[in-house]
Amino acid sequence: MKDIVVFSGSAHRSLAKEICEHLGVPLSGADISRFSNDCIQAQLLANCRRRDVFIVQPLVPPTQENLMELLLMIDAARGASADYITAVMPHYAYARSDKKDASRISMGGRLVADMLKTAGATRVLTMSLHSPQVQGFFSMPVDQLTAIGVLAEHYQGKDLSDWVVVSPDFGNAKEAATFARLLGVPMAVGSKKRVADDKVVIDSIVGDVVGKKAIVIDDEVATGGSIIELLDKLEEFGCQQASICTTHGLFAGKAVDRLQGHHMITEVVTTNTVPQDHPDWTQLEVRSVAGLFAEAIRRTHDGKSVSKLFRGVDPQYAPPPPRDGLF
Amino acid sequence: MKDIVVFSGSAHRSLAKEICEHLGVPLSGADISRFSNDCIQAQLLANCRRRDVFIVQPLVPPTQENLMELLLMIDAARGASADYITAVMPHYAYARSDKKDASRISMGGRLVADMLKTAGATRVLTMSLHSPQVQGFFSMPVDQLTAIGVLAEHYQGKDLSDWVVVSPDFGNAKEAATFARLLGVPMAVGSKKRVADDKVVIDSIVGDVVGKKAIVIDDEVATGGSIIELLDKLEEFGCQQASICTTHGLFAGKAVDRLQGHHMITEVVTTNTVPQDHPDWTQLEVRSVAGLFAEAIRRTHDGKSVSKLFRGVDPQYAPPPPRDGLF
Amino acid sequence: MKDIVVFSGSAHRSLAKEICEHLGVPLSGADISRFSNDCIQAQLLANCRRRDVFIVQPLVPPTQENLMELLLMIDAARGASADYITAVMPHYAYARSDKKDASRISMGGRLVADMLKTAGATRVLTMSLHSPQVQGFFSMPVDQLTAIGVLAEHYQGKDLSDWVVVSPDFGNAKEAATFARLLGVPMAVGSKKRVADDKVVIDSIVGDVVGKKAIVIDDEVATGGSIIELLDKLEEFGCQQASICTTHGLFAGKAVDRLQGHHMITEVVTTNTVPQDHPDWTQLEVRSVAGLFAEAIRRTHDGKSVSKLFRGVDPQYAPPPPRDGLF
Amino acid sequence: MKDIVVFSGSAHRSLAKEICEHLGVPLSGADISRFSNDCIQAQLLANCRRRDVFIVQPLVPPTQENLMELLLMIDAARGASADYITAVMPHYAYARSDKKDASRISMGGRLVADMLKTAGATRVLTMSLHSPQVQGFFSMPVDQLTAIGVLAEHYQGKDLSDWVVVSPDFGNAKEAATFARLLGVPMAVGSKKRVADDKVVIDSIVGDVVGKKAIVIDDEVATGGSIIELLDKLEEFGCQQASICTTHGLFAGKAVDRLQGHHMITEVVTTNTVPQDHPDWTQLEVRSVAGLFAEAIRRTHDGKSVSKLFRGVDPQYAPPPPRDGLF
Amino acid sequence: MKDIVVFSGSAHRSLAKEICEHLGVPLSGADISRFSNDCIQAQLLANCRRRDVFIVQPLVPPTQENLMELLLMIDAARGASADYITAVMPHYAYARSDKKDASRISMGGRLVADMLKTAGATRVLTMSLHSPQVQGFFSMPVDQLTAIGVLAEHYQGKDLSDWVVVSPDFGNAKEAATFARLLGVPMAVGSKKRVADDKVVIDSIVGDVVGKKAIVIDDEVATGGSIIELLDKLEEFGCQQASICTTHGLFAGKAVDRLQGHHMITEVVTTNTVPQDHPDWTQLEVRSVAGLFAEAIRRTHDGKSVSKLFRGVDPQYAPPPPRDGLF
Amino acid sequence: MKDIVVFSGSAHRSLAKEICEHLGVPLSGADISRFSNDCIQAQLLANCRRRDVFIVQPLVPPTQENLMELLLMIDAARGASADYITAVMPHYAYARSDKKDASRISMGGRLVADMLKTAGATRVLTMSLHSPQVQGFFSMPVDQLTAIGVLAEHYQGKDLSDWVVVSPDFGNAKEAATFARLLGVPMAVGSKKRVADDKVVIDSIVGDVVGKKAIVIDDEVATGGSIIELLDKLEEFGCQQASICTTHGLFAGKAVDRLQGHHMITEVVTTNTVPQDHPDWTQLEVRSVAGLFAEAIRRTHDGKSVSKLFRGVDPQYAPPPPRDGLF
Repeated sequence: MKDIVVFSGSAHRSLAKEICEHLGVPLSGADISRFSNDCIQAQLLANCRRRDVFIVQPLVPPTQENLMELLLMIDAARGASADYITAVMPHYAYARSDKKDASRISMGGRLVADMLKTAGATRVLTMSLHSPQVQGFFSMPVDQLTAIGVLAEHYQGKDLSDWVVVSPDFGNAKEAATFARLLGVPMAVGSKKRVADDKVVIDSIVGDVVGKKAIVIDDEVATGGSIIELLDKLEEFGCQQASICTTHGLFAGKAVDRLQGHHMITEVVTTNTVPQDHPDWTQLEVRSVAGLFAEAIRRTHDGKSVSKLFRGVDPQYAPPPPRDGLF
Repeated sequence: MKDIVVFSGSAHRSLAKEICEHLGVPLSGADISRFSNDCIQAQLLANCRRRDVFIVQPLVPPTQENLMELLLMIDAARGASADYITAVMPHYAYARSDKKDASRISMGGRLVADMLKTAGATRVLTMSLHSPQVQGFFSMPVDQLTAIGVLAEHYQGKDLSDWVVVSPDFGNAKEAATFARLLGVPMAVGSKKRVADDKVVIDSIVGDVVGKKAIVIDDEVATGGSIIELLDKLEEFGCQQASICTTHGLFAGKAVDRLQGHHMITEVVTTNTVPQDHPDWTQLEVRSVAGLFAEAIRRTHDGKSVSKLFRGVDPQYAPPPPRDGLF
Repeated sequence: MKDIVVFSGSAHRSLAKEICEHLGVPLSGADISRFSNDCIQAQLLANCRRRDVFIVQPLVPPTQENLMELLLMIDAARGASADYITAVMPHYAYARSDKKDASRISMGGRLVADMLKTAGATRVLTMSLHSPQVQGFFSMPVDQLTAIGVLAEHYQGKDLSDWVVVSPDFGNAKEAATFARLLGVPMAVGSKKRVADDKVVIDSIVGDVVGKKAIVIDDEVATGGSIIELLDKLEEFGCQQASICTTHGLFAGKAVDRLQGHHMITEVVTTNTVPQDHPDWTQLEVRSVAGLFAEAIRRTHDGKSVSKLFRGVDPQYAPPPPRDGLF
Repeated sequence: MKDIVVFSGSAHRSLAKEICEHLGVPLSGADISRFSNDCIQAQLLANCRRRDVFIVQPLVPPTQENLMELLLMIDAARGASADYITAVMPHYAYARSDKKDASRISMGGRLVADMLKTAGATRVLTMSLHSPQVQGFFSMPVDQLTAIGVLAEHYQGKDLSDWVVVSPDFGNAKEAATFARLLGVPMAVGSKKRVADDKVVIDSIVGDVVGKKAIVIDDEVATGGSIIELLDKLEEFGCQQASICTTHGLFAGKAVDRLQGHHMITEVVTTNTVPQDHPDWTQLEVRSVAGLFAEAIRRTHDGKSVSKLFRGVDPQYAPPPPRDGLF
Repeated sequence: MKDIVVFSGSAHRSLAKEICEHLGVPLSGADISRFSNDCIQAQLLANCRRRDVFIVQPLVPPTQENLMELLLMIDAARGASADYITAVMPHYAYARSDKKDASRISMGGRLVADMLKTAGATRVLTMSLHSPQVQGFFSMPVDQLTAIGVLAEHYQGKDLSDWVVVSPDFGNAKEAATFARLLGVPMAVGSKKRVADDKVVIDSIVGDVVGKKAIVIDDEVATGGSIIELLDKLEEFGCQQASICTTHGLFAGKAVDRLQGHHMITEVVTTNTVPQDHPDWTQLEVRSVAGLFAEAIRRTHDGKSVSKLFRGVDPQYAPPPPRDGLF
Repeated sequence: MKDIVVFSGSAHRSLAKEICEHLGVPLSGADISRFSNDCIQAQLLANCRRRDVFIVQPLVPPTQENLMELLLMIDAARGASADYITAVMPHYAYARSDKKDASRISMGGRLVADMLKTAGATRVLTMSLHSPQVQGFFSMPVDQLTAIGVLAEHYQGKDLSDWVVVSPDFGNAKEAATFARLLGVPMAVGSKKRVADDKVVIDSIVGDVVGKKAIVIDDEVATGGSIIELLDKLEEFGCQQASICTTHGLFAGKAVDRLQGHHMITEVVTTNTVPQDHPDWTQLEVRSVAGLFAEAIRRTHDGKSVSKLFRGVDPQYAPPPPRDGLF
């Protein structure tokens, strides 16, 4: 098979370029145009024939525009006789729509997975899906990376003796526990209570946080509302300082205002799965996942195991336990 | 089978309501919400189980948002055990993307047709596709209505003795000829010439227009640019007045300004396949296609032939020629 | 469409019969035979042509045998021209295999969902899937019932003033919260800690249990190991009595011995999604879900909303919130 | 991947052999036999395992026989574990059936495209489809070559100062315009008028042809009826000599008689996409497309861009316009 | 659902009409036309919307033409929104191609089954497939009728005391045995021997035929070659008179000459699954299967069991053995 | 493409190891575990990315367990991005379920073939399917090996002058004839007669066996019942000694007892497609097919023709007859 070809849609060109620099291949051009009736058209400007094509496009706002761009680029690559087409979605936003918690409701996480297959994607490369079951929505191989290691590096080497990792709710508790274990610190969890049909509040903190500093970890921070609510509760329970840590820093709506001005927050640590353009937000620390994605693309192309990448970090890619010569 | 249930997305609620009034059924509610990360979720608020579900949503700007709404509503209806799900798209904008006129380019017309199938649509009801072949992009039954009759009614009864129907180019000439035949007037066509790799101009008018008044007919008017160019050429050829007539009046970009102020234009006749909200544009005449869609829905539900609807108008629905008892 | 026809495989004939009694239709015969090379063959003994066929078969041990029986019966019904084929699986055991928490591991929950579709199932009727996302593994409509209401009835009318609902872990906490709300009692959760790569222990109880009596609720009890571990911890935290409550009472391996002899357990409440044949286990209280399944089958057949069944109980079937005439 | 293997059905062995000579590979044997009940069976006589298989078979009369041969050969290649199977159809006759211009009519262009996929074809290589949208009927990559360049070579070097390219109708006008531009001569178009429900006549010529010689170009000439009608009209408009030029020279029915004896025709130029066996027709000039197909096969196999082949000729394969370092 | 609509292709109109007479419904018109390039187009002349459509077309010579007609008619019915489309193929000729007895050979029996599904058929109604496994080639319900009863009626009431049923080979022996049992006469079988790689001869008769009269039964008689060979061997073994009996009487090539003039043959009994037009062949007795097909169509439409039709004749449709209230 | 990787389920590890030894590659580990609710989970312990994966698992008892293991291992390999996944099933037990000989009966042979495709298998490697048509049940390439050569080697070199090959029935007669031809001995066949609706007996022997020794050959011996019945009949016809020869020696139920103690049987020759663990059965001669499978795997991987392997043995893999330069 022929070489790797990498394309990028409009969603996050700088990440795509950074991945290409790690890979040592050029970012191939793609022309995204628009008919006067608002329909999108995508043209790929490099040969795809029998190539191993990777299209980098996180599903970030404007999500529908970016999704449609991705689908059309996949369609173009398929029509151009690519051998493999990997949708590289550092943030798969539709994972949020992963269950039917009301009657006659859409389940976008599964639908978009099926649409990617319809368009012609043969593999998906993504990071930290909202819930682990979402991987089962795809009918094609999925490699799910984790930013836990990249985020942990930020804290390693610091004195963490009075810190505690805090998960805003039980849904994310498992990943928080992995993170706490990695840093060697204890852990606490916010406990939620439904106070009305459409209203849930954090009414308690499980675990000891008195006099401690919190590393609040969540997979995605959008409006920041639940982070603020958690901080209020943490303060009430005797915790006075927090470092916010998240893989997917969407910072939508009033998020930046809320977080930037908060008296408890000393820093916000995130990755570049989502484009970050906040030159004045000095507390924001952005760590790049480009190296991880580049390495995964390289290993995928070379037919090497991706699980080696995550030794000791991601339970999904745990090395098989030692075995004494079963066969 | 149980009754008809009609839903509408955000694209064009007023048309959906008008169709329902013709049908004598209520427009059932649908709740379109948005996750904080910009993903859309659709909930249908009426029972779909074993029902004949119709979802009205033309693909008008914002096209990607409206398309995704439609797909999610179809997904919700399928999950809710609908027996039939008809995507009612009075304007199928992606029909514009119907060929590969450059290398490695997407073909959205086919891709979106496949996506509708993936989501669970079992049938499509639409109007005046950009080219007749687009019907072949769908893997499910398509009923394609025409607004030719509704538009012609506007002119019938008027003195058309010095009028001529003009098509801006040869691509649309066949439909223009049908229209001219319907009105009983002659026809002319704009002839285009490519003057650069990316520039095409109308350089002549085929057919006699000297001293005549033109009914310029096109399937879709978006920015109005080619209409203006045609009017310039018509004027040059001795025609001084024009009525603009189009099924899909998108009027995007500067279209309204261009058309509203033009000295040759006496009126702009269009339909409501696209939402029309131009209270100050007195020259705009909007004719409703709601009755046509309602009748097609009714006949579809009742298992009656839809072709009867178009006797003498739409060649696609031509009645079978009389046969003398072949069998 | 013609009438309902109900078949049962070998897994749980008594439940199928009970469902049929509620429906007022006979349980139609099915002949499950075996080739001498151990292959299974299924023959349906009632006409399926254009019928609404329901095949009752929970995936209980021997799971592979029962799964294969179900698939072959579906295949036979499809070959016999059934119009609809609903796989009625009160217990969908493969939902346990819902994520890839190690590299190169199978995801049975999705695979079996795809196999059911391959065999010809057009719909699934099930109860309390291990995680809500599993519904997204299916490519066909799924109606997921809940036994929460049926189980709660057991406790209603009793004095619950010093009781607390306890979930063994955070994964099941959401359903436990619903249950606690239904009974009007507080709630606690066992907190787990990984002590070795392959060993997890409950090391704490979140919430107040001192001097209280526990209703331990879990979706599935198999070997009972984690229940016993939780009871030890509950005792340590000052709780001395427990009622065990579970939808899917598999009671595999040493479960009966463990639970029957335990000094803290006063009763074990479960349903008949799994066959229960423990005549000597006096503490076992089995509540039937046959009525729920019969009602869901009836409403499905009649094209009525199933969500009505769960008003106030199952968030998935929540009635749409009141709306003031949006359209 | 292993080498190219080329097979031919019965439709056009000499073209297949010529393609193989260009490629420098042998034409592998295929045994087409027939059961006594008229069913066809195909056996491929060369190893296909992990090979890049090309099956050359234009859909020429007897069309159904040739189509079925092609499908069975594809089926045999798939069963024999070919890695890629390209259906090489220099003439895809079913492209004529590309729209529904009457109710309840078949659309063979789409159906045959789907049948090729069902049989196992993974790619299509064809030439000059009847309309550009037909490419969207295929669910697999299609490379569509053009004979425009090969046909133009015939005229290049001649004095074309008083010639005009004429398209019989507007449907083919775009390709005629490309051809005229290539030769540097002006262009005219026949204008059709429907005179009865089932009768269309050419009633005018758009563009100046007085005293000129016509190069009449059409994608396909079958019975030659519309060519003769066009010549009559051209003569009436003052044109007295014509060179007939067509990619797919089917010459069915009375075509040869009509064209051979016509007083205006000086020559008929066509290609060998369709077998040409007219030893006595001295005015017939057949130009071979074998070199084009061989080059496309070679580039496909080598993973090189096919668009390079058509620089300056085929708009579909236009080189991407120069871009100044967008990324 | 709406009424039955029956169409016929060109293959066997008289059978279709006879079936319609039994059903009491008109044979609806279908217009099979041909493009000048030999492509077929099918137009159905009766409303199919939500109808139960049956298309009668045995795969008889010209087989490819008839197959393509059938596929295009199915495609047209699907596009016209039929609810069910049953391909009624009284003779499924491609069943002969049911195994791979040489390397890289096509398996038409499976391929054509898949093509029927691709075109949109939802069910197949056929008669006496060449081998019972062929039913497994279809991905949709198949009802396979048998003409054994209709053929047996010809002999019932006659004195069969010195008759023997003879199968030409072991492949058809099972059906011959059923036939012998039905008539109450003994049975014999021709034993074949391969004498060269491509030559097989009947070298013996298994079973006693001395002085007996033979009823030679085969599922299909094409060229009659193996029948003649069998007769030679039967004569050699002491049998001097034969009645030839076959479901599918193709009588291709020299069959009529061979059979009509043969000194041992007293009569040839067949059915009209294949059109029979031999006014001068006085020994030919054609028995109609139209009643059987009409009854199967009626029962299918009414949702009644088809197996009832064959009580005591076809093992495939054996009634379930009596069961004493198992459940 | 990368190297061969071979895995084995629980069904027959020793055969998988032997195949690997022939191939000179290690048998890679696979971890088959079980949830406490009896669901199986499979983890592959070697990198599959872009590999050519072979999973060895005959469908032997416990058949359902082994089938599910195989499906889950295929699913895991697909999720781990294998390029090709070949299901190596030396014994495909479900081939027994290859026809519908009763109404509303399952056809497991086709269903399991479809399930293998659903799980992700891209090719099948098997041996001696119960009937040749079963190959047509698979939608993917199937290589069907034969043990005829391996079994014949056992007899070659011995004095076979008074031996005869006997097939228990006509269904297997064709393969028996091939075997007889290979050994150069005559052949006889048991003739069966149905004596009741559910009872068939061997009532005669076709062919001369008086005073001869029989090599009884069958594709599969399960309970041995029909073998014993055949021996009784053979003895009655004057044959007194038998060598039993079968590809798939299942020896289920009382088979070993029946065969081991039989006075006519001198030996039982079989292969290891099914695990053989009968240390005390001295008459059992097991011949290995591991070499054949290894060679087929090797040739498949290398893209060489597998038909070469069977020159002169398997009609399916017959070399194409010599041809004198047809093209």
